[in-house]
Amino acid sequence: MLQAQDATPPIAQDRQGGILTLTLQREASRNALSEEMMAALQAALEGAASDPEVRVVVLRASGAVFCAGHDLKEMTAARAQADGGRAYYTDVMGRCSRLMQTIVTLPKPVIAEVGGMATAAGLQLVASCDLAIASDTARFCTPGVNIGLFCSTPMVALSRNVSRKQAMEMLLTGEIIDASTAREFGLVNRVVPEAYLGQVVAKYAETIAAKSPLTLKTGKEAFYRQIEMPLAEAYDYCAQVMVDNMMARDAEEGIGAFLEKRSPEWTGE
Amino acid sequence: MLQAQDATPPIAQDRQGGILTLTLQREASRNALSEEMMAALQAALEGAASDPEVRVVVLRASGAVFCAGHDLKEMTAARAQADGGRAYYTDVMGRCSRLMQTIVTLPKPVIAEVGGMATAAGLQLVASCDLAIASDTARFCTPGVNIGLFCSTPMVALSRNVSRKQAMEMLLTGEIIDASTAREFGLVNRVVPEAYLGQVVAKYAETIAAKSPLTLKTGKEAFYRQIEMPLAEAYDYCAQVMVDNMMARDAEEGIGAFLEKRSPEWTGE
Amino acid sequence: MLQAQDATPPIAQDRQGGILTLTLQREASRNALSEEMMAALQAALEGAASDPEVRVVVLRASGAVFCAGHDLKEMTAARAQADGGRAYYTDVMGRCSRLMQTIVTLPKPVIAEVGGMATAAGLQLVASCDLAIASDTARFCTPGVNIGLFCSTPMVALSRNVSRKQAMEMLLTGEIIDASTAREFGLVNRVVPEAYLGQVVAKYAETIAAKSPLTLKTGKEAFYRQIEMPLAEAYDYCAQVMVDNMMARDAEEGIGAFLEKRSPEWTGE
Repeated sequence: MLQAQDATPPIAQDRQGGILTLTLQREASRNALSEEMMAALQAALEGAASDPEVRVVVLRASGAVFCAGHDLKEMTAARAQADGGRAYYTDVMGRCSRLMQTIVTLPKPVIAEVGGMATAAGLQLVASCDLAIASDTARFCTPGVNIGLFCSTPMVALSRNVSRKQAMEMLLTGEIIDASTAREFGLVNRVVPEAYLGQVVAKYAETIAAKSPLTLKTGKEAFYRQIEMPLAEAYDYCAQVMVDNMMARDAEEGIGAFLEKRSPEWTGE
Repeated sequence: MLQAQDATPPIAQDRQGGILTLTLQREASRNALSEEMMAALQAALEGAASDPEVRVVVLRASGAVFCAGHDLKEMTAARAQADGGRAYYTDVMGRCSRLMQTIVTLPKPVIAEVGGMATAAGLQLVASCDLAIASDTARFCTPGVNIGLFCSTPMVALSRNVSRKQAMEMLLTGEIIDASTAREFGLVNRVVPEAYLGQVVAKYAETIAAKSPLTLKTGKEAFYRQIEMPLAEAYDYCAQVMVDNMMARDAEEGIGAFLEKRSPEWTGE
Repeated sequence: MLQAQDATPPIAQDRQGGILTLTLQREASRNALSEEMMAALQAALEGAASDPEVRVVVLRASGAVFCAGHDLKEMTAARAQADGGRAYYTDVMGRCSRLMQTIVTLPKPVIAEVGGMATAAGLQLVASCDLAIASDTARFCTPGVNIGLFCSTPMVALSRNVSRKQAMEMLLTGEIIDASTAREFGLVNRVVPEAYLGQVVAKYAETIAAKSPLTLKTGKEAFYRQIEMPLAEAYDYCAQVMVDNMMARDAEEGIGAFLEKRSPEWTGE
């Protein structure tokens, strides 16, 4: 399966100031989540997590397809193995689920910039990001039901973004929704003309990158933890998070700057 | 309470290909969930579950009322019993809750076709279905609060379809919402002109009936199970569901057909 | 920090029939949740809970700001304490979380009437109410991220009203949304012209105050309890709630009145 473009890395990384842009660039294979692509994305995200220069991650893709989901050729090839592929599928699904959760647990906000079609695990990538901005040419679907493989892992992320009936319509019919419907469903935050997509995402990324990184880390982690708790437990937990946040130098600086009507200077502590 | 039309069964069953249509047909009693109606619906759903010819169930009603909820005359009659009706109400509520959960756990998709008013447990039926298509003449409400009996069991299904404030507005005021509002809230998937309702539902049902029944069963069950789990647990569970799904013959056939650009032939295995 | 207007109580209370209106009236301090304001609101809510004359609570504010969240001057002053303020912040956050949960557990519906800007814990107040009606001049934001203090406790309420991506956009950017967007997100039920706000809220309050107080108490409590349960458990719980509700005198009266086509007379039993 070696092809000419495989010499190019599956993901381009570009950091400008605090904004790290990851671009899936396997257009010929519709940016499918091959083993190589998943490994590259996992490594890039882990790198972003530990790099103090990175404050916000933008995840985008080149070509008309944002990401087409799993690599069906790799999946089918594994059927030749002695166990019919079971061990391979277990490994692949485990790695893919870990990748999605790495986005959720990343201590920095991740913004999906979606300019094309996102399907199956590709849609799952979008749903797993903290924010998603789409062009009016973006489209979304969970077509696994058409090929006998229900989009069961993608729906974990999808059903935490959109309502039950909307998710079920996508999952049971496998049909495509447009960007405007995706916004209405809650899968993306904004829909903008294609020509403005990069600019709008850059504006969001810059806005967020200007905040205290400690505050972003604190808040993002607490958000996804508290949302799974009963109300009383969520309040106990978040009240403690607020107290710890108040004791941080960045909160003292930020509140002080606000009261003194000046700009804050973050140290990330 | 025997009336002329009681000779007709409370539900008409009609199977065309893989699509079983269940029509509530007690217009005179507004298709209320009397004991007889609940028993008939429970039996019809259980029959659909075990009949391999049935791939999709459509739930509809004749008349201007889709379903008016519990039968208040039966409920009131039970007050004459020695315990004031408590044992009877416990039994009725248990059977109604079991009926609603039978829809959710049915191994086949259930589509509500709503052409009229759905109130209280009638609305709960709609909310419990996987998909709901409404005519622009459909209306919805949870009016129990008006008669001193809060729609507490209907709200279990309602509050899992619409947001908290929207559910609370319906429950606290008891007022009617129109089809368009119901769609905005997420209670129904689509609103279509009344004259097109049957045709649109048929199109959805046919689209879904053409999928692998094994895949639909796998996906529907996993959907409602994972949605109640924390994220990490949902991923562990659904990754395993995907692996098992990959090992099924229908996934091998479906993926093979997709790669070979031909139509799949499902065996349901 | 004593100022001229501190002689006025922080909250005005006005009961007309079954409707208790609480008006935050510290315009000069943007109705911030100072210790004094929180104590007054807690006391007013507890009074409403135990007063049998009160059937519905309306929470509103005078001035252009509904509520600006915590009192940052009080918070900053506490830094001078030996522990840098930790004990104080723990106490304040605990009291604020208790206040919000008092709204949720209050045995009477609470309606937010929002005519201005609601930020941080001010937005949390709105999100914690059962219903919220906003004027078209209302605005909402969670700006803590701008001052190094993520809106972690406000997001407990926010994220139970709006979808994840919408909540995250507000929390990560700190930017303001207008009333119409808040309605689209599910944070408020209705948006009306400013001149009609009081009238529309009064209509909702009167409608709800005319219901059986026992039924409202039963239903509200059950709503927030069942929403945190898995489906089967929620049905078991709510079926029991329905049985108990059926045994109450107000249900017998309400159902009887309905069948007899007369108006019910509630005794609250």
